[in-house]
Amino acid sequence: MPELRKDPIIGRWVIISTERGKRPTDFHSVAKTREPKHCPFCSSNEGSTPPEVFAIRDNGSAPNTPGWSLRVVPNKFPALKIEGDLNREGVGIFDKMNGIGAHEVIIETPDHMKDLVDLEFEDFRNVIRAFRERIIELKKDSRFKYILVFKNQGELAGASLEHSHSQLIATPILPKRVMEELLGAKRYYDYKERCIYCDIIRQELNDNIRIIAVNDMFIAIEPFASRFPFETWVLPRFHESNFEKLRGDTIANLVSLLKETLQKLRIALNDPPYNLMLHTAPLDDGYPEEYHWHIEIIPKLVKVAGFEWGTGFYINPTAPEDAAKFLNEVDYASV
Amino acid sequence: MPELRKDPIIGRWVIISTERGKRPTDFHSVAKTREPKHCPFCSSNEGSTPPEVFAIRDNGSAPNTPGWSLRVVPNKFPALKIEGDLNREGVGIFDKMNGIGAHEVIIETPDHMKDLVDLEFEDFRNVIRAFRERIIELKKDSRFKYILVFKNQGELAGASLEHSHSQLIATPILPKRVMEELLGAKRYYDYKERCIYCDIIRQELNDNIRIIAVNDMFIAIEPFASRFPFETWVLPRFHESNFEKLRGDTIANLVSLLKETLQKLRIALNDPPYNLMLHTAPLDDGYPEEYHWHIEIIPKLVKVAGFEWGTGFYINPTAPEDAAKFLNEVDYASV
Repeated sequence: MPELRKDPIIGRWVIISTERGKRPTDFHSVAKTREPKHCPFCSSNEGSTPPEVFAIRDNGSAPNTPGWSLRVVPNKFPALKIEGDLNREGVGIFDKMNGIGAHEVIIETPDHMKDLVDLEFEDFRNVIRAFRERIIELKKDSRFKYILVFKNQGELAGASLEHSHSQLIATPILPKRVMEELLGAKRYYDYKERCIYCDIIRQELNDNIRIIAVNDMFIAIEPFASRFPFETWVLPRFHESNFEKLRGDTIANLVSLLKETLQKLRIALNDPPYNLMLHTAPLDDGYPEEYHWHIEIIPKLVKVAGFEWGTGFYINPTAPEDAAKFLNEVDYASV
Repeated sequence: MPELRKDPIIGRWVIISTERGKRPTDFHSVAKTREPKHCPFCSSNEGSTPPEVFAIRDNGSAPNTPGWSLRVVPNKFPALKIEGDLNREGVGIFDKMNGIGAHEVIIETPDHMKDLVDLEFEDFRNVIRAFRERIIELKKDSRFKYILVFKNQGELAGASLEHSHSQLIATPILPKRVMEELLGAKRYYDYKERCIYCDIIRQELNDNIRIIAVNDMFIAIEPFASRFPFETWVLPRFHESNFEKLRGDTIANLVSLLKETLQKLRIALNDPPYNLMLHTAPLDDGYPEEYHWHIEIIPKLVKVAGFEWGTGFYINPTAPEDAAKFLNEVDYASV
């Protein structure tokens, strides 16, 4: 019997329909072939990107020259632009405003052949540090209401360049999906006076059937009402609404858990394309008690089709408990 | 300058970012090669599907034998199942219920080589009639709250069989996306005492820059806050919340407009994969004044990636005005 499950945060129902013939092994992705050619994100091609706004560099190397281990540059084809005013206005019944915002690219490594999960601990930590530094910097611009940090890994997940990178978009409005999460979390908090994410973590630790990695400070789970096979969330076990408040020792814990999680997904699903999204509180620091930052990872294994577009209701052919079991059977220690 | 636009119904902002280098001609899809092999939807293979629940047949032909021009059968691998009780229950903090519902397939033609848009007028009308008949029939089951009729055309749009078909899923809950539209339309109605869709149609007829087809009873537009390039909506010009109230003469008008719309999309975009979704009122006939049924068509031309998943906010590289212009330059008369 298929099962309907409800996401307790935003109230979205999903259909867990495991009888449709998809098993974890049906999802194996095709391994990439990499052809570096001329890549604007490779070392020595610094001139192919707009000038860097942040970098982690060897002592003494000049900006926009080799010698870096991570660079952040404005997107050459930005979805939103940094210069100008919002000019909000009506057009008859409709509303529009200028597309003001920031769109930056975090080039995670100078090495074309490495993915995020391949990075040495220190280099991976630099990626997390860069996310944090850029949020802190862009937060100073009062035109921005929200910053989304995300990563598209692989062409099927929407990456237009294969060299490992993440992106960041600062938006002048609070996006709809973010607002839904904030309001859902607030509704729960108003009723229970507890954070819904903290309660979910407590239940997941207790149930112990959807956990795929855990350490003192972080936990990775397959959420109860997963929209997609192998959808994975990484949450801090301590309550905190704003990602950018992360401190040094905590970053190390996040890096080791995130690396383990991505490693398991890679081995189990044969290096799948994926989207990774950081969900954090709005820039005005609202919802400090109610909201709880976290990372969502969606391996790109199934197609979103008419039913999902028409209803916002997802059909997931793999129960999260089965996905967790499969990921935990991966021979991770040998990697 | 990119532009932010807001959907007046559900309040979703989109980014119209035409400077990212995508022009209509960049989206041309690859034409399909068809290999019939053994197709369960072809004539003479009626035994490969569950028994039909509705059909349009030559006089005298027996159910589940050849002689039909359209068949409706239960989905062999249903996302939701018709037998059983809902058994709604809590699991700690979470909620679940049994996956009760109906999942049917409308086989639009016995001819493997035809797409919906290729059908003769009479056969196309039968497809619309079948949608209506099945909704009226399933509406009698009080366990169902909503019925979504949809079509996935092409493998990239999620079709697992290439033989032309639509689907219908009756759900025991009101899906989230539907609820958002209903509430958005209600909010407008409460304020203006007018239907928001009627007002949009009035403005579109007046602006006359996003219309791609129009007749006495229906209109096809590229919506102002399109999420996707060439996203197209087909709406009745008269106010009506429930699709199934369509009458005979009105069906003919819908068929001719829908056929023209699909034809234009096919020619302009080289037979793109697409999702088509019927948006109609809930089965309890709620929102009769506020809601207005319509059809949404999304050609599958771009990938939904991390930013969209993280924010519910879409980046559309083609302004709807440009899409409409391109579709209207198609040499449709010569087809």
